[in-house]
Amino acid sequence: MRETFHAELDSLINDLAKAARLAGHMMANASTALNQADLALAELVLSSEGEMKALCDDMNQRCVRLLVLQAPVATDLRVVVAAMHAVRDVERMWNLAQHIAKLARLKHPAVPIPDDVRPVFARMSMLATSLAQDAATAIERRDPLSGQRLAQADDEVDALRRRTFQILFAEDWAHGVEPAVDAALIGRYYERFADHAVAIARQVSFLVTGLPPTR
Amino acid sequence: MRETFHAELDSLINDLAKAARLAGHMMANASTALNQADLALAELVLSSEGEMKALCDDMNQRCVRLLVLQAPVATDLRVVVAAMHAVRDVERMWNLAQHIAKLARLKHPAVPIPDDVRPVFARMSMLATSLAQDAATAIERRDPLSGQRLAQADDEVDALRRRTFQILFAEDWAHGVEPAVDAALIGRYYERFADHAVAIARQVSFLVTGLPPTR
Repeated sequence: MRETFHAELDSLINDLAKAARLAGHMMANASTALNQADLALAELVLSSEGEMKALCDDMNQRCVRLLVLQAPVATDLRVVVAAMHAVRDVERMWNLAQHIAKLARLKHPAVPIPDDVRPVFARMSMLATSLAQDAATAIERRDPLSGQRLAQADDEVDALRRRTFQILFAEDWAHGVEPAVDAALIGRYYERFADHAVAIARQVSFLVTGLPPTR
Repeated sequence: MRETFHAELDSLINDLAKAARLAGHMMANASTALNQADLALAELVLSSEGEMKALCDDMNQRCVRLLVLQAPVATDLRVVVAAMHAVRDVERMWNLAQHIAKLARLKHPAVPIPDDVRPVFARMSMLATSLAQDAATAIERRDPLSGQRLAQADDEVDALRRRTFQILFAEDWAHGVEPAVDAALIGRYYERFADHAVAIARQVSFLVTGLPPTR
């Protein structure tokens, strides 16, 4: 019975890593859709909502089933609890990618990102996407240092967000209110996406080291 | 042992309701701080960060302890799992109130909300705050209809957020970029705060009725 438990737990962990990786792909696609006014790509991201919800609901149910069937203790219990939290993080990451895709669809055929902020968002998108991949790898390898490493990459995301505000609030901002509001919200979505990837990696570090995640 | 379990679970649920109510007070205070450029009130909200984190960490640990010590099944297990999710919602609500307090501090002594959007934010703040109170009451009374009822109030929050964009993007918006960006982000914080209150109420409905939360 313990063997079944561990086989099911391993399968859950694998699926969780896959889902985190998929969230990264979705964010990459949503960013491309936004930058290139690619409506088809935006629709592709938006059409994945049902699949994402089903996947996360399924993982949540498997967490609860593992708790019910096996009443795990110590590390096993910690893993299941961490997985439950991580499922929620992944679901939010997916939602945030969808927010960016929705904006791409709403503004199509225009590209709502003025040239001034384009390099900043290109970098934010790249960092956010690779943070999702890193979170997935951290889950798979149970890497104890992942929390710290991802938090460092996240610092750059936060710095880029502050840079965005400098650009938007500068006297030479010539694009008016609407692109500034869009840019502020896009920055917020990238920032939150990155935060959730870090939260997952911190849970992994906690599991491996037993030390509680620091914020 | 079962009696101890239920006593501990009841105490956890009570503390959770208290924490949700406190999050509502924090959001009310943060909103007043913002509207009246009240720096002392903003600092009061911001100074509660440590207390909030300690409270949520403590509730999380109690959830895990309940799982370890009692290996609860059926409804009891569902309650503990729902409580774990709700703790996270409350923590985010508190963070969002802090975002508004930070903005009040950053802009002090100015009031960053132009008159055009002030009535909209007054209503959003009122709704967000009472959604937190309603979520707390839903937890205490285990009200099966709370999810549906709070979702309806949340619809008004979403409508007000759309109204904000109409005002910001209108041709007669005369306040420039920075107040528009601030207003868009403030609206986002209220919206997310309300979403988390609804998520708590939906968990409560799920516990009482056994029907999974709909979104």
